[in-house]
Amino acid sequence: MNRTLPPCVFVIFGATGDLARRKLFPALYNLYAEGILPSRFAVVGVGRRLADQEAFLADVWAAIERFSRKINPELRESFLALIHYHRFDLADKTGFAQLAADLRRIDNERGTSGNRVYCLSVGPDQFEIVIDQLKEHRLVSNNDGAWQRVMVEKPFGRDLTTATNLNAKITGVFPEHSIFRIDHYLGKEMLQNLVAIRFANALFEPLWNSRYIDNVQLSVAESEGVGTRARYYESAGALRDVVQNHLLQMLTLVAMEPPVDLSSEAIRDEKVKVLRSLQPMTPAEIRRNTVRGQYGAGKIMGEAVPAYRDELNVAPQSTVETYAALRLEVPNFRWAGVPFYLRTGKRMPFRSAEIVIEFKSLPGVLYFRQQPPIAPNLLVIKVQPEEGVAIQFNTQGMGNNKGIIPVQMDFCQNCRFPSQSPEAYERLIADAILGDPTLFTRWDEVAHQWRYIDQIAAAWAENGAELPLYSAGSWGPEEADQLLRREGRRWHVYQPQNGSY
Amino acid sequence: MNRTLPPCVFVIFGATGDLARRKLFPALYNLYAEGILPSRFAVVGVGRRLADQEAFLADVWAAIERFSRKINPELRESFLALIHYHRFDLADKTGFAQLAADLRRIDNERGTSGNRVYCLSVGPDQFEIVIDQLKEHRLVSNNDGAWQRVMVEKPFGRDLTTATNLNAKITGVFPEHSIFRIDHYLGKEMLQNLVAIRFANALFEPLWNSRYIDNVQLSVAESEGVGTRARYYESAGALRDVVQNHLLQMLTLVAMEPPVDLSSEAIRDEKVKVLRSLQPMTPAEIRRNTVRGQYGAGKIMGEAVPAYRDELNVAPQSTVETYAALRLEVPNFRWAGVPFYLRTGKRMPFRSAEIVIEFKSLPGVLYFRQQPPIAPNLLVIKVQPEEGVAIQFNTQGMGNNKGIIPVQMDFCQNCRFPSQSPEAYERLIADAILGDPTLFTRWDEVAHQWRYIDQIAAAWAENGAELPLYSAGSWGPEEADQLLRREGRRWHVYQPQNGSY
Repeated sequence: MNRTLPPCVFVIFGATGDLARRKLFPALYNLYAEGILPSRFAVVGVGRRLADQEAFLADVWAAIERFSRKINPELRESFLALIHYHRFDLADKTGFAQLAADLRRIDNERGTSGNRVYCLSVGPDQFEIVIDQLKEHRLVSNNDGAWQRVMVEKPFGRDLTTATNLNAKITGVFPEHSIFRIDHYLGKEMLQNLVAIRFANALFEPLWNSRYIDNVQLSVAESEGVGTRARYYESAGALRDVVQNHLLQMLTLVAMEPPVDLSSEAIRDEKVKVLRSLQPMTPAEIRRNTVRGQYGAGKIMGEAVPAYRDELNVAPQSTVETYAALRLEVPNFRWAGVPFYLRTGKRMPFRSAEIVIEFKSLPGVLYFRQQPPIAPNLLVIKVQPEEGVAIQFNTQGMGNNKGIIPVQMDFCQNCRFPSQSPEAYERLIADAILGDPTLFTRWDEVAHQWRYIDQIAAAWAENGAELPLYSAGSWGPEEADQLLRREGRRWHVYQPQNGSY
Repeated sequence: MNRTLPPCVFVIFGATGDLARRKLFPALYNLYAEGILPSRFAVVGVGRRLADQEAFLADVWAAIERFSRKINPELRESFLALIHYHRFDLADKTGFAQLAADLRRIDNERGTSGNRVYCLSVGPDQFEIVIDQLKEHRLVSNNDGAWQRVMVEKPFGRDLTTATNLNAKITGVFPEHSIFRIDHYLGKEMLQNLVAIRFANALFEPLWNSRYIDNVQLSVAESEGVGTRARYYESAGALRDVVQNHLLQMLTLVAMEPPVDLSSEAIRDEKVKVLRSLQPMTPAEIRRNTVRGQYGAGKIMGEAVPAYRDELNVAPQSTVETYAALRLEVPNFRWAGVPFYLRTGKRMPFRSAEIVIEFKSLPGVLYFRQQPPIAPNLLVIKVQPEEGVAIQFNTQGMGNNKGIIPVQMDFCQNCRFPSQSPEAYERLIADAILGDPTLFTRWDEVAHQWRYIDQIAAAWAENGAELPLYSAGSWGPEEADQLLRREGRRWHVYQPQNGSY
């Protein structure tokens, strides 16, 4: 790494929670193992679940062993020595007073200079309590050149109104440049890479517009069900949980104009322009261009799984969507007339996030008359679990079978250097400590995202939009296929059995 | 195969020679094994070297076992039963009389209806004798609906004058549509495939012009020396042996406009237009834009090999070039200003024929300021020994090393279906029997090729052009690197050690 991180304390609220265990501590450990963390550094974890420092450290190490991409047991002692556990309920204000005193003590002991990242890894209902208490106990103050930043996990509100209120609360304490709103998809290698792929390749850049691209498909498919997140998910659904953030971020990175330079603000300016170009839809257009769905019982990789309504903490008559698909356009000079199809769902056949660019057919190839017709060229950006780029193009069949057939070539980024492919959170934590907001969501992005999503959510609520069930292990409701088929298109899904789309 | 070959006799003049053993019989065998040959079929071999039918068949089978890409011993008897050996010297006219009688007998026995392919696998000095005798013995005549065709091996003349004379001789006996001039590179899968790659892919077609392409590099590299061909090669050299035919054919396939349809004449019309677009060069331009070379002693894969002048049948002071490189332009609307660099050589580090398309740098990537500068995008058509397509493009480095790095993706056509990749001669023989001339060189192509080559050969001869020696096992003389370097370019050569160009 050619970037030196400054001394600081990384404070995790919700340090015994699921996100901290799965993502934050493994990421901190990996940054430590790679020598990226600053030498003057400490982690303070605030939580309730575990009794004391000893139990907490045991739990942290168990999480690292389970979720980290690599483990060096020799680093166990020295890494855990960086960590301080504070057990208190966030409603208990004396806990914050104690925390403030301890942070000052740690600054003295570790030389961390009052620099802090406060990471809100708690439920959204607790964001405001923490912000208030940080202010109350003077844990945010620009004295003596120290800095304090806040990392906020999603969901950032559940609509434009609640997001605006939350934002007002946070900006009352932190200036915008100290607020790091997490959309962890932005930390994924291939989404960061999109800027390079688009703008450093003469093979792709000239084709990246409505003249050559027929449509763009953005998919985030999960094979898991709602799992332990039902309490949150019942008030969110796929539209708020994934479309509002991950899918709209993927959209902006695919569709944005080249930035003036590679600075954080220049890139985010261009992303916001894409969101601003989106047009509001009428209720009739929403009915026509969106699809909801909810998974029924089914099988994933041969294993029977229950319907959404039979999951723990889900209402038996729940009308929350676990699948959402929409067709939209970006009516600017570059993209007018090109459909973008977005979809996300739980209980899909396998986990996969990717971007498929389908190129227009060449009119001249009519003279290759053949049945089935010549397949379109595809450029696929694989976001997860595989990270890479694939091209599906046409070649002549072998030997004496001279038909035109589609074939693939691909580049697998994380196959090539598997141990070097960092988790999104590693990048995001390092960037927050460094103060680089490029891969975080600026407030105007969040606001535009919610403005677009709210109209859809409202139309769905007012109309009592249809909620077809789809079998767990399928690619979602038939209506989503129909969304493309009525325009003569289809979803391009990787077919593992024949290695093509 | 969805094409049914008509009954015929395939007559090989030079049936005991090197080409027949290495290429023709293995190809005939493979076509037979795949059930592609017609059921009413025979092979007649004319030669001198072997004593009788028995010795000949043993020799043919030995050649098939050695050179065929697959062998089924159970087919030995039935395949060899198709073959008739005629031993006579071509100067001996009674031999032709006997041949004519036998062909009539075979037609009666096998039902081959008088249809014949005469394959001239002899030295160019014997082409005319055979043509004369075929006429003399009425072995070419359009009576009763039968057809006779002639396949002519290279070299087709050694300059425009000799080629024109030879052509006049042949066309005095065969009409143009019955003359199949072999350039076996046209039978290679990936050169046939170029039409599909160029015109059936929306990813490539829009970029295929001077706006996006910086330069095109066409290479035919051999690791072998002159071998047993010195007697011919001493009067030819690399320019006549490879540039005039294979390299100019590769050039036409890369540069041609889309044909009206996929018919033989439409494609060849477009290829000829490329050759017609080439401009004559002044002697000064030839001095500046061409490089000759001759291999000295050296090592190929660790093995010491002699200098060209020390090879068998090479004059000790020979000034024949074993390496040739040239820079040319195709000054038409599509290609004006784009250099095409052609090169061929013997005793290169490894055997490889390929087409490298180098794309122009994007001006906008200046904002990715980095050293070394961002690499250009490359599209590589691999002709041999591997057959396929590779793309070199740019991606962001992994993890915390975020520089832009070049990476490859590739599609290997013959890795995928190794047993299905036919040798060029299989395709060419089948096409000749079928009467499809697409993959053969039309007379006007040959004439334009020679016209272009003759001016260079003449300038070289008049000027006493320099003939730098290059070490066997190198990529040719330094002057060839300089040809590109003076324009800020370099040859893109696959680097096996790091898997990139």
